[in-house]
Amino acid sequence: MAELRFDPITGEWVVVAADRGSRPSDYPGSGSGARVHGQDACPFCPGNESMTPPEVMAVRDPGTAPNTPGWTIRVIPNKYPAFSPDLPFHPVSEGLYDLSPAFGIHEIVVESPEDDLRMADMDLLCLGNILAVYRSRLKAIGETGKFAAALIFRNYGKAAGASLSHPHSQIVGIPVLPRLVAAELESFRAHLSETGQCLMCGLISQEIGEADRVIIHRDGFLAYAPFPSGLPYQFRIVPTDHGENFQDSADGDLAAFASVLKEALARLRNGLDDPPYNFILHTAPFLSEGPYHWYLDVTPRITTTAGFEWGTGFCINTVSPEEGAAVLRDADAK
Amino acid sequence: MAELRFDPITGEWVVVAADRGSRPSDYPGSGSGARVHGQDACPFCPGNESMTPPEVMAVRDPGTAPNTPGWTIRVIPNKYPAFSPDLPFHPVSEGLYDLSPAFGIHEIVVESPEDDLRMADMDLLCLGNILAVYRSRLKAIGETGKFAAALIFRNYGKAAGASLSHPHSQIVGIPVLPRLVAAELESFRAHLSETGQCLMCGLISQEIGEADRVIIHRDGFLAYAPFPSGLPYQFRIVPTDHGENFQDSADGDLAAFASVLKEALARLRNGLDDPPYNFILHTAPFLSEGPYHWYLDVTPRITTTAGFEWGTGFCINTVSPEEGAAVLRDADAK
Repeated sequence: MAELRFDPITGEWVVVAADRGSRPSDYPGSGSGARVHGQDACPFCPGNESMTPPEVMAVRDPGTAPNTPGWTIRVIPNKYPAFSPDLPFHPVSEGLYDLSPAFGIHEIVVESPEDDLRMADMDLLCLGNILAVYRSRLKAIGETGKFAAALIFRNYGKAAGASLSHPHSQIVGIPVLPRLVAAELESFRAHLSETGQCLMCGLISQEIGEADRVIIHRDGFLAYAPFPSGLPYQFRIVPTDHGENFQDSADGDLAAFASVLKEALARLRNGLDDPPYNFILHTAPFLSEGPYHWYLDVTPRITTTAGFEWGTGFCINTVSPEEGAAVLRDADAK
Repeated sequence: MAELRFDPITGEWVVVAADRGSRPSDYPGSGSGARVHGQDACPFCPGNESMTPPEVMAVRDPGTAPNTPGWTIRVIPNKYPAFSPDLPFHPVSEGLYDLSPAFGIHEIVVESPEDDLRMADMDLLCLGNILAVYRSRLKAIGETGKFAAALIFRNYGKAAGASLSHPHSQIVGIPVLPRLVAAELESFRAHLSETGQCLMCGLISQEIGEADRVIIHRDGFLAYAPFPSGLPYQFRIVPTDHGENFQDSADGDLAAFASVLKEALARLRNGLDDPPYNFILHTAPFLSEGPYHWYLDVTPRITTTAGFEWGTGFCINTVSPEEGAAVLRDADAK
């Protein structure tokens, strides 16, 4: 059973989830259960639906039954979850430590039946459908009223923490706010009370004006390398009109976002030789009364974070965001 | 010129240091300037002193001149620094962003003339001398009155961020407090005001009592896997008597710490097949009026942090600290 443990020194919760150590991998050398990519043992491939827990939702051909082939997108509970909805969030103290069963949601979005497909190569309709699935799950998780926040992330490549290469992303719903998210909320709140404006809207306006960190700007979305980027070639995609929640996006917004995301990921692949990356979608925490402004951060994993970064949270970026943006701006967009 | 940039959303400073991208490496495949380990191009080997900036201090044989062979430990400015003492800390605002030249200290401690020596294999006298050099540099950096904090860290192995394999550690003196350090200070302060006691002293007492996360306990030091460890096999070494600053340690304390550190690193090597690791020495920030309690955290790098951890600071640990401590406790101590 996974457990949430509170660190009284850092003020941060961590999850101890020992079962996750035994999850399968198809990256050679990454531990037990390695599979050879392309063989039939991939739990995310069509025909192998019984290898996963029963699906939460799916986009599937009319007339096909749940947990059988015929789907184009499939949402399933993570078989090796960090969080479980069947546990209570019930913190108790043991001396100076607080702990709780790791109540939460941990789902996988299998993004395609194809075992080997980059998100940058997906067609726009498929990518838009994936975003619509994100929207649907975030709405449903929020409406339970049981979670502090939800985040969606994607690990692409072994160096970015992926254990299976079949295209997929992950949804986490958590009962507590990570410290980083709490700090963000405080920044948004303070800026609003000082200026009457959304902090992200102000940053967007400044980045568009300065232009040298802009990668893509069209159709109501901005892809740019933030001035204080902590990792080489890191970039952010954000709606230029104020929007607190990703899940309030209209269909047209999702289509535009899909188009900009596809182009940005293609530029990343072409400009940096298909690097491993993470992306993480930040939307307003359910607990928050705002303000917030949703965004997606893409962090290529081409350098190794060392002791200083890990021990302090203080990043040293060896590529200036201006140079990073120029490389992506100059890369092929398809 | 390296630059400090403030992130108005996260409330964290980052360093943009583009020159560091061109530093040499002797790990194959890690970029430009790769050297073959053991050849004479290592800038940290005796005879190659001219490849580095002039030494700040050294432990050397009587009668030998600075920047020539004859040393056993050598402290030099980092040739590819994230921070420089020749820059001013002078934050200015550009719109919503704050920035400053990256004023600070960034030094290398070359720990041995031997090119290929693990810290676990160093003799106790040498290891004690390294710790005494740490103490001396921390004192000197603090006495300038110019820095908010200093941290010492060690990256062992390419996966832990090392670019050169010659045994070395790094000292950083910074003009601002990392958010993680500020959060720690607040926790220590709050606990003192609530209970009249040092938070770390309380945690040490609890960990010794519960015993199942203890790895080594002798000679005034405790090595243990903290209850809320965020990484597999992570452990902490801490003096069991209250001590705010590492640099106030007496010679006898350093000798005992060296002995426990050597044993802990030997257990790590033997128990986990010589994994890459970081360690980071946390001592009271110069700016702080306390309370604090110095400690050293060792974080093996055997798993990859993924999008969720990176985007939220919220860790998912796949090995329980109790199991991690048992593995290290059962490993050969030599």
